[in-house]
Amino acid sequence: MELKRHIPDLELRAWPDGVGDPKDIEFTLVWNVQPGMYKRFHNLKGILSFGAGVDHILRDPDLPKNIPISRGVSSGMVENMNQYVVHWVLHVHRNFHYYGELQRRSEWKFRRNPHAALRRVGVLGTGILGAAAAEMLTRLGFPVMGWSRTPKSIPGVTSYSGAAGLDDMLSKSDIVVCLLPLTAETTGILNAKTLAELPEGAYVINPGRGAHIIDADMLAALNSGRLGGAVLDTFMQEPLPSTDPYWKHPKVIVTPHCASWNIVSIAAAHQAENIKRVMRGETPRQLVDRTHGY
Amino acid sequence: MELKRHIPDLELRAWPDGVGDPKDIEFTLVWNVQPGMYKRFHNLKGILSFGAGVDHILRDPDLPKNIPISRGVSSGMVENMNQYVVHWVLHVHRNFHYYGELQRRSEWKFRRNPHAALRRVGVLGTGILGAAAAEMLTRLGFPVMGWSRTPKSIPGVTSYSGAAGLDDMLSKSDIVVCLLPLTAETTGILNAKTLAELPEGAYVINPGRGAHIIDADMLAALNSGRLGGAVLDTFMQEPLPSTDPYWKHPKVIVTPHCASWNIVSIAAAHQAENIKRVMRGETPRQLVDRTHGY
Repeated sequence: MELKRHIPDLELRAWPDGVGDPKDIEFTLVWNVQPGMYKRFHNLKGILSFGAGVDHILRDPDLPKNIPISRGVSSGMVENMNQYVVHWVLHVHRNFHYYGELQRRSEWKFRRNPHAALRRVGVLGTGILGAAAAEMLTRLGFPVMGWSRTPKSIPGVTSYSGAAGLDDMLSKSDIVVCLLPLTAETTGILNAKTLAELPEGAYVINPGRGAHIIDADMLAALNSGRLGGAVLDTFMQEPLPSTDPYWKHPKVIVTPHCASWNIVSIAAAHQAENIKRVMRGETPRQLVDRTHGY
Repeated sequence: MELKRHIPDLELRAWPDGVGDPKDIEFTLVWNVQPGMYKRFHNLKGILSFGAGVDHILRDPDLPKNIPISRGVSSGMVENMNQYVVHWVLHVHRNFHYYGELQRRSEWKFRRNPHAALRRVGVLGTGILGAAAAEMLTRLGFPVMGWSRTPKSIPGVTSYSGAAGLDDMLSKSDIVVCLLPLTAETTGILNAKTLAELPEGAYVINPGRGAHIIDADMLAALNSGRLGGAVLDTFMQEPLPSTDPYWKHPKVIVTPHCASWNIVSIAAAHQAENIKRVMRGETPRQLVDRTHGY
């Protein structure tokens, strides 16, 4: 395994069959934690998340209180997410979904879009992933805004924060990209009230978490014509059940939670560095603040 | 018209009905020239192309010999082309065409793509449009190569030139983007021989000109499985006839020559500057070299 290239004397045990005596386990490298798992590990020194989100870890009621939890955003994950966001922003901006329909009818017709300078993009969440995507979008000509809990400074990106900032930014966002962590505060953040604040015909792109969206409200906003469309990568239930109305909705693009992932060789260096830091008594990189939930 | 904001005393006459006495005409601002048009203008000082290509102008046998012809690539056109190229490179790279098919079947399934560092992009033509697109692609993580008649220096982009350079670059291009001018040398440049040089499963993206491709060879390469797919924006005949096999080909994405266009307010400044330069006896920007055909 790639981790051993960085820490040769590391002993790796695979969950669940290879764990052996749970008392031996010092670190868990996890994704999609099953609640109750942490009851059995009494000598943990650290919890490393494979992914960007830690909502799946923090909801375990048996989570040990005093050990560091770190997030797993490596440069490969940033690159993949950048590609996803840039692609789908350009896709809706340039009406490529419409041109796809025309091709199915062998029909040659223009639908000119506004100049990128007139298409405002609002990025919800300006952490590592959101900040990188926001900056890349400015390079493609879009005016970009970013919203986060606390104000941020990203070159070329207008910063909004707090509840008033959210309403303000949404009212100007022709395209909204959700890259928030899933916390108590952000659950259901895209709901009837906030979707109604968007400009007529706005698009929502959600590679965040399914629970950021109140699905009934999203479907209502799509069906009423308020929203131009939505690109959804994450859902309340995954895999998305084959009977879910999103699949066949003409204004919805569904992707199977494929927006971003870590590239193993790059991610291993990040995780190994965090193991070393904790073993030396230092704070790991991308330490989770349990109060804020990310 | 926007031009008059830059040159207030300019007199504009619209082709064909508003031309009046052809002897009065000093400049023509043109797109898709009808052969024979230039026979009637005897006092021309300059020809300004609306678009990036001038192949439509140069094929007029009556074209006056000694007046400057300038191309119409403004920053708005560069931005639009960048968006087109970045979108479709990401689209094929990330298998989004495949995910679209899965959605039509309500099917949740991954098809992981290689890391961008392993997907080599070759850009044919590194003029204003090609150089800008090549540089943007490097920012998204792709190794990018550029081919042109003469060697070019573009930050982060490996330069190839000449006939041997073409074969060399194509043999390493997992995705080829054609942004060449259409000249005697580049007509049919993507043919049975050159398509066979591409790696197995390569993709071709052509926002250049339809005549860059030998269509029968392209269809053969798609049908044999050699090519992964093609994204075509330009065609030998436009609009593409509804009976053309490209429309229904499962590996072809057709867009209706919508890759790029000028944004009027930005383009007007470029054209006005060239009129002023010629009136002052100077060389216009983006002067066409008639020997090389662009």
